Amino acid sequence: MAVSSAPRPASLDESAAKLHLIDTDVHNDLPSYAELKPFLAKEWHPWIENGGPFSAERAYANTGPGIMVDAVREEDGLCAGDPDWVVKQLMQKYRIDLGVLTGTLIGASVQHNAQAWAALSSAYNDWTLAKWVWPYPCFKGSILVAGQDPEGAAREIRRLGREPGMVQVLMASAARIPYGNRLYWPLYRAAVAHDLPVAIHVGAEGTGLANPPTSVGYPSSYLEFHTDHSQTMMGHCVSLVAEGVFAQFPTLRFGFIEGGICWAPYVLGRLDRMYPALKAEVPYLTKLPSEYVLGHCYFSTQPIEEPDDHAHLLRMLAMLRAEETVIFASDYPHWDFDNPLTAFASFPPALRRRIFVDNVLAFYGPRLLQSHQ
Amino acid sequence: MAVSSAPRPASLDESAAKLHLIDTDVHNDLPSYAELKPFLAKEWHPWIENGGPFSAERAYANTGPGIMVDAVREEDGLCAGDPDWVVKQLMQKYRIDLGVLTGTLIGASVQHNAQAWAALSSAYNDWTLAKWVWPYPCFKGSILVAGQDPEGAAREIRRLGREPGMVQVLMASAARIPYGNRLYWPLYRAAVAHDLPVAIHVGAEGTGLANPPTSVGYPSSYLEFHTDHSQTMMGHCVSLVAEGVFAQFPTLRFGFIEGGICWAPYVLGRLDRMYPALKAEVPYLTKLPSEYVLGHCYFSTQPIEEPDDHAHLLRMLAMLRAEETVIFASDYPHWDFDNPLTAFASFPPALRRRIFVDNVLAFYGPRLLQSHQ
Repeated sequence: MAVSSAPRPASLDESAAKLHLIDTDVHNDLPSYAELKPFLAKEWHPWIENGGPFSAERAYANTGPGIMVDAVREEDGLCAGDPDWVVKQLMQKYRIDLGVLTGTLIGASVQHNAQAWAALSSAYNDWTLAKWVWPYPCFKGSILVAGQDPEGAAREIRRLGREPGMVQVLMASAARIPYGNRLYWPLYRAAVAHDLPVAIHVGAEGTGLANPPTSVGYPSSYLEFHTDHSQTMMGHCVSLVAEGVFAQFPTLRFGFIEGGICWAPYVLGRLDRMYPALKAEVPYLTKLPSEYVLGHCYFSTQPIEEPDDHAHLLRMLAMLRAEETVIFASDYPHWDFDNPLTAFASFPPALRRRIFVDNVLAFYGPRLLQSHQ
Repeated sequence: MAVSSAPRPASLDESAAKLHLIDTDVHNDLPSYAELKPFLAKEWHPWIENGGPFSAERAYANTGPGIMVDAVREEDGLCAGDPDWVVKQLMQKYRIDLGVLTGTLIGASVQHNAQAWAALSSAYNDWTLAKWVWPYPCFKGSILVAGQDPEGAAREIRRLGREPGMVQVLMASAARIPYGNRLYWPLYRAAVAHDLPVAIHVGAEGTGLANPPTSVGYPSSYLEFHTDHSQTMMGHCVSLVAEGVFAQFPTLRFGFIEGGICWAPYVLGRLDRMYPALKAEVPYLTKLPSEYVLGHCYFSTQPIEEPDDHAHLLRMLAMLRAEETVIFASDYPHWDFDNPLTAFASFPPALRRRIFVDNVLAFYGPRLLQSHQ
């Protein structure tokens, strides 16, 4: 499987050499919907009054620890809701140079009322810039979009596409329709026009207008719900390749965040096995399916799988070409946070460097290093 | 991960030593619904007149070769519909000692009318015995059940549970509700009472009362549909473990047929990672999730993944403890048939022996070797 080098920059900026660690998944919190009012179109104000808009929240209660204990500030109970606190408790404590904010409203793209959530996402994006990104050189933002309305999402991408503080388009992996479908192509066209990668993040499966969390229906426990997360990722990955998204948009980079990584070798092997016999269906593809995946897709580490035999993980990473496709994520402040100082201690240093810095830069492109102040 | 040895017999029958190859997935065909009439309760006859009952057929057209050319008999166009023909074209040609019949009505368990399909499944099972199993020592049958009505399925299992020609319970992997759910436990109780393993087989995803083929909705192509098959398998596997099916039924053996195998290491790793933090939800589990999977689950080879680097496949098999969990399947007469004489040529002989014979015997238990004539 020859890897397409098209979407990966040939050389990295010199300033990259100074970086040691970039976190692609920092969940900064919105303490109150009232904070969005200054950014939200007036017509939607009544909708967020009385504590916030109705949203189809996660249906599975996490019976585990939930939030990292040291992420909660004792005096006000605020968790990841204050930028200075996150700088101290995450960025400084774990020596992270740059953090990409993924927030707490990723489920916007599976809420029933797409118009309302498009307005709310716009306000949220402006709030992210004003409160988190512009005052802090260490934070970069995501353009949250209500992807169930791809034309609307494209407008939001064009509105913020020139903002150097925004480094990706973000939506839920939960969905009603697989992301390769042509319905979404306006969204990809806008992202590519601004050289923005598109990232999808787990967590809203089975809510709003999304399908049940598995293709066999609703599981019974959060343990299942969480383990099953990778299935939305797999469905989208197969769809993106088979529908020809990467053939149509040769510079598009796609990120799979918090959905695990060790499912990818399986998908590559199975797609490549089936493709030769079923080419007639997908005549617009000009490469092996695995080449599209390895050339366009990036997979975040958290939660990194922990097989009993650690060598298995390294073998899986090799099958996935981790030296070009895997990017670091902490998932701060969530319970299954991966501590970058320990979780990767056994990785070869060169691979760690690729996962912590080089691949992350390749995924986001040059704007990650551009000043936004 | 210590493997539970409970459901695997400690020693194999001496006659097993004479066997060289057992095929766990032979799709014998029903040439016409009229053949079922002698076995079908009178009240349902009108329902199968005019060519057969309505059934929610597969929604994705296979644009590939479909059926193996040499499986079709020239003079009458019959494909795998005549036992003598299958003996000649499959069993003798590939030197297969025993073939487990999986038929063509596996989607029974996702058809809307459970009562009607329970009746049809019963007739089909009796037809299988009369036409295929009893006259041919090389064929064993599956008890097809309409699993959407687990109490009804349990009755069918009890009706045929003492028949030595029937070696497993069979239903679709497509489902409305994951198979760990307590709704299905009457079915498992009946299977265990007769020491019959339960097998699920892909193909009906997105039809009848099943969910869409992926947890993000309907894909567009058969290439996707086929690649996504493993997702139903994963959902059920996680559900069976997490709901405590294997804790409740310590002798239950579960087979995943035609859903691929290389997804399993990923699921094991992810479940084991999450379990310690989420134990509170599943207090009835007394082992690591991976121990339940490795101790109770069997995975059929076809279609075996074919990564570019063949060493990857062998590494995956090691992670999955293939020497105890993988069983051979040809999928005759379907297009992606795995030829046992060539597809496994590069496997170590000891592993091949386990996959071709020993694991298959462990899965079906002693009745596979019992005479049914």
